[in-house]
Order: sequence, then C-alpha cells, then structure tokens
Amino acid sequence: MKKTISILGSTGSIGQNTLKVVENLKGFLEVKYLTAARSSSRLVEQANKFQPEAVAIVDDQAYNEVRDALSGSKIQVLGGREGVVEIATRDDVDVMLNALVGSAGMEPTIRAIEAGVNVALSNKESLVMAGEIINGLKEKTGAEIYPVDSEHSAIWQCLSGEVPDGISRIILTGSGGPFRTKSIDEFSKITVSDALKHPTWEMGKKITIDSATMMNKGLEVIEAYWLFGVRTNQIEVVIHPQSIIHSMVEFVDGSVKAQLGLPDMKIPIQYALTYPHRQPSSWEEIDFSSLEMLTFEKPDLDKFRCVQLAYDVLEQGGSAPAALNVANDNAVKFFLEGKIPFSQISTINEMAVQKHDFVKHPDLDYLLELEEWGKRLVSGDW
Amino acid sequence: MKKTISILGSTGSIGQNTLKVVENLKGFLEVKYLTAARSSSRLVEQANKFQPEAVAIVDDQAYNEVRDALSGSKIQVLGGREGVVEIATRDDVDVMLNALVGSAGMEPTIRAIEAGVNVALSNKESLVMAGEIINGLKEKTGAEIYPVDSEHSAIWQCLSGEVPDGISRIILTGSGGPFRTKSIDEFSKITVSDALKHPTWEMGKKITIDSATMMNKGLEVIEAYWLFGVRTNQIEVVIHPQSIIHSMVEFVDGSVKAQLGLPDMKIPIQYALTYPHRQPSSWEEIDFSSLEMLTFEKPDLDKFRCVQLAYDVLEQGGSAPAALNVANDNAVKFFLEGKIPFSQISTINEMAVQKHDFVKHPDLDYLLELEEWGKRLVSGDW
Repeated sequence: MKKTISILGSTGSIGQNTLKVVENLKGFLEVKYLTAARSSSRLVEQANKFQPEAVAIVDDQAYNEVRDALSGSKIQVLGGREGVVEIATRDDVDVMLNALVGSAGMEPTIRAIEAGVNVALSNKESLVMAGEIINGLKEKTGAEIYPVDSEHSAIWQCLSGEVPDGISRIILTGSGGPFRTKSIDEFSKITVSDALKHPTWEMGKKITIDSATMMNKGLEVIEAYWLFGVRTNQIEVVIHPQSIIHSMVEFVDGSVKAQLGLPDMKIPIQYALTYPHRQPSSWEEIDFSSLEMLTFEKPDLDKFRCVQLAYDVLEQGGSAPAALNVANDNAVKFFLEGKIPFSQISTINEMAVQKHDFVKHPDLDYLLELEEWGKRLVSGDW
Repeated sequence: MKKTISILGSTGSIGQNTLKVVENLKGFLEVKYLTAARSSSRLVEQANKFQPEAVAIVDDQAYNEVRDALSGSKIQVLGGREGVVEIATRDDVDVMLNALVGSAGMEPTIRAIEAGVNVALSNKESLVMAGEIINGLKEKTGAEIYPVDSEHSAIWQCLSGEVPDGISRIILTGSGGPFRTKSIDEFSKITVSDALKHPTWEMGKKITIDSATMMNKGLEVIEAYWLFGVRTNQIEVVIHPQSIIHSMVEFVDGSVKAQLGLPDMKIPIQYALTYPHRQPSSWEEIDFSSLEMLTFEKPDLDKFRCVQLAYDVLEQGGSAPAALNVANDNAVKFFLEGKIPFSQISTINEMAVQKHDFVKHPDLDYLLELEEWGKRLVSGDW
C-alpha cells in the first residue's frame, strides 16, 4: 500500500504542505524526487530530511549551492529547467505532485502524462494552457490526473461512485477574495499588500493575487471544463465568503453533493496522494455546532471581469485560454513588482486574448512560444 | 433498465410523493402493488391510474369499498394487515418502498428482506425496532435496504464510492422543529396545531410531531447506527434550521461530504428507486446565489430529552430501542387525540424504556407483543 511520490515545486506553499502530509503518513508515502526554482537552502533542508533519490533546481547559482551542500550524500542533483522536466518524466513513482506556479508548470505535466506518470495537479495552468493535449495523452498512456486545487478536489470527491451522465451542474465556490465588497471605483488604488491579504486561505503570492482579481476562479472554470468533461454552461461560479464549502455538484435528479472542510490545503493534497483510500490525519476538524453561518452570493462579473473572460475564452476555444493564462502570469508578476496597477491586470489579460496569434489546436511548441510571448507582452512589446 | 416496485402506504404523504416520482419516470418505474391502511377512495383512484396487479387495504370497511370499486378490473384486492404483509413478501418486484407509519411498518420490512426483496425504507421504525434481526436477514438473503429518509439518503449518497473504514463521523442535521427557540417552560402549553406546523418540511402527522419533540432525530440516530455500521459515538446531531444540508459524513482525513437539496422528499425517494443510477427530475432546483444563509447549532438535549433518550437506548441495546419506539408511537397518537399534553410524550417514552420487559436479543414474536404492549401503555395499563 506504500506510495512513492515526486514533488515539483517542493519549496513553495503547496510543496511545503505536501511534505507535512508526507510526514503525517510516514510509512505510507515516500518521497523520491524534489524540485525547486531557486530556494536552495530550503531544498537542501528538505533533501536532508526526506532523503530523496534526486533533486532538481532551476536557477544556476542555486544549483551550485545545492550541489555543494549535498556533495557528501547519495542524492543526485540536477540543474536548470531541463532538470525539472527530466524529474517529471521519471516513471518509477506512483504519483508526481505538480505544485509549480504559472505556465512553467505546463511542460512538466505534459511530459509526466506522456511518460505514463499519474499527476496530482496543483498547477491549474497546465490544463488551462494545454487541456486538449493533456487529455489526448491521458487517453494514450492511461495516466491519471488527481486534482489538488481545493475546488476540484471537492468536485472529484463528490463524483466518487457517481456516473458521469448524472451530472447536471458543477458549482465552483469561491471566497470572492479580499475585494468582494470593495467598490470598483477604488480598484485603481489597491496596493500589493492589500491584494496579498486573502480573507480565508494562506497561499502563495501568485494564487493570492489571482484570488484578488478572481482570475483564479476563472482559471478554475477552465480547469473544471477539462477535468470533468462538462459543457461550459454546466459550470457555475457562486461566491461563498467563508470558504467552508469547497465546491458542489448538482445531479440530474436535483440532488446536490458538496465537500466541506476548514480552509487547509493539506486535506486535498492528502486525498490526491492516498486516493482511492483515505488515511487518518491530525489536522483540525470542523466543529459544525460552533460554525459561523454559511452564505452565498452571485459573483459581480462587471467588477471581476477575469471571471467573464474565462467563460469567453472557453467559448472561443483553441489558443484563447492559453493566451489569457500567459498574459495573466506576467501581469501578476508586474503587479507584484509594482510596475502596473491592480486594475490593469484584467485589461492586459483581455488585450492578450484579442491580440495573440490564434490557432485552433495549439501544439506544445506553439504553447512554449506563447509562454515566451507572454513575458514580452506586459512590457508593451506586442 | 426498467424497475418494478411495490408501495406500502401509498395513500400517505411519502406514498403520494412516490407516485409523483413514478409519473415523472414513466417507462422506467412500474408499480405492481399498492397498500393502504384505510383511505379507500384514494387507493381506488391510485389503482385506476397506475393499474397495479394487486392492492391491499387493512381496514375491513375500507376493504369492502375497494373490492367493490375495483370489481370490474383485473386488479386483485387483499384485506387486513395480513394482506399488507403478503404484498410485502411478493418477490417479483425490484424494490418495495415501505412508507408505513410507526411500528406497523416493522413486520412488512422483515418479511420482505426475508423473501429477498430490496426495501426502499421510509419506515425508520423498522430498524429502530428490529435492526439486529433485519441486518441478520440481509446477510442471509442478500436483500438490500435503500434509505428514503432525507438524512439517511444524504449519508448514503455521501458514502457512494467511499470505503467504510474511511468514515470518521456521521453528522445528522435536523431543523430543530417548530419549538427550537421556544422556552421549555412553555412546552406544556403547546397545542396539536402548534406542533403540526413544521418550519421547513411538509410531512405526515406522526413524523411532524416526532420532529416537534425531536424524537424523530433520535430515531434517526438509531436508524443510522443500523444502516451504516458505525459506533454510537460516531453519530452527531447538529441543528441546521434551514433544512438545506440534509446530512454529512466526515472522513478520517478531515474531509466532509454533504448532500444538499430543497426540502422535497421526492429527491431521496427517487434516488432510492433509481439507485445506482440517477434519472432527470422536474422538481425545483436550488439557486445558491439567492439562498438564505445556512446556520448550525448544538441541539438542546435538556429541552429535547428524546434525543438523549435515543443515545441512551442505543447504549443499553437489546429491546430498549424497541420499547422507546412503541411508547412513542402511542404517545404521539394520544397527543394527536388531545389525551395527553405535548410535554408528556418524552416522559412516557422514558418510563416505557425503564418499565418494559428487557431482553437482550428480541425476536419477532417478542417485538410484535411489545407493539401490543405499547398500545396499552399510554392508557396507564402497564
């Protein structure tokens, strides 16, 4: 019953939570590979503690640091983006958890699925960019995707034991982020530190900003489309500020199933790694008797244009969702660096969709080029 | 894919809702047998519309009326309680829906399971009285029980695709009934019409009074114990006044699944009849965006002693739950007839548990005797 895993992005928020899950399930989960972008000291610490067979780190300087620090050990050290991609193709694990941030997570997901490796997917951008390619490869190799996003994990859990044609609607819940009740007139004054204060979830910076613009919910709509084989008009977004109900599925008979929990990513991470079983955890439980009220609202699509934009690109299909995604990756980066105001993120996203070189069935080369195009985009170099 | 069914208690609230489900699923569900206690004209009407092979009616006078009314048809007419029990043993149906009220539903459930007939069980008193016997017979004949109670249907749906040892807690939700916020000092002044005003569910009289005393939630705790193979301390009651979440299951990893829906018995009835499939329905859907807030509270066990009493009789085991149940059946009857005040229902229930002739493993004969004892009980004839 033991499972071996690799973790791409082990030094980030999801990666660190994954290692807490591994610690809680010692003897059941074993880490074989870890990768990071540039946090050399944290990766070395993790490597010493979990004793993987190999680690990879993207940044050159960080690579040198890790290689030196682990030189006395048996742990192999790989460098560069190609090192991460190589780790993704190693098929001697039961599951690869992809916790990379943004478009950079796409290629490793594709390579893993191509190599027949099951992917626990936290990097929603993989499916947003390359849903068609990934679903095609899944069919070919039989590899599976286990969602890690709390919303998609909720839907996946609700679908357990159900037949696909029983689904009527997928109801994606979202907290609405820190600006749910803020007037749109004040959006231009939003600072980086305002946007990084998420009301219910503690997460990495990229996804926290995506939650503030609600682009995150939009990307989740696209992710749900590829994961669950439903039509766009079967996916509904509902605001639920308390983040207790993580999402719901309505069935054709009017019955609705929901998955609930405290806002703790360790729960969906663990489920993705132990599926189809459940293992005991030591996290805090919900006390329903003392739970505050649960409320629901319609999302304001005029204020949070990124949600509507997600529905629009799904309708357009082809490369439109990928263009949205690479634009957003870089717009968020620029916002975090103080180069553009908050209100411009959705404007850039919208323009990118219009201006990119649309193709009907983008292949991997096209998508990798688009990723580079995205980097030039926000600097005005269209 | 067609299913044939029998309905015991077709003229009551659950029975009538079941026939609405059948109408909605014409071509998928076919009614073979109907039974009623005494509503002759309604049974005749149903028989003419659904053309079953046979009907049974308990009351002698009503039997004569039904026999005469259906004399020109091919429909066989049976009479008396034995007629209903005979219908219960007919094994040429896929499912028998037992919508009988109170202890009278027990024997037909036992006879059906004994005959290898799957039972869609609305009569929770069957399991409260004879859980041990019924589970023993299920093992022997392979017949199944499909819960119809909205709470147990919710739990059953949440357990779909899950493994039993993954369950941590069952969270039975209840509206708290019409007297949730009423002071216990005013309980003696409660009238029959006060108690029949349920805030969220439209149901038969017996269950509506049981909801007002919260004995219903207590009986559901016992029913859940026998249905889902959990320990007493794994069943928790939580008050949820809006009746939107119908119950929940917490798993060992901290994840919680809930089933939700508008308070409409047609949903759990249909699921029990179409299981393991789901069929489209035409009932009203939940609009989450316009849903009022959902709230939760601890039940007040001092005010609603019947809930605590249910936990107590489960601990005692043996015939204690059955004694509670027959006492309650008759106490409710007496209350509805204006013979005892509302506040005395729980007192009678409590005394019955103490005073009855306790046996460790009650058999059917004992339970049928106990049913008769219950009828004498509230008149003071101990």
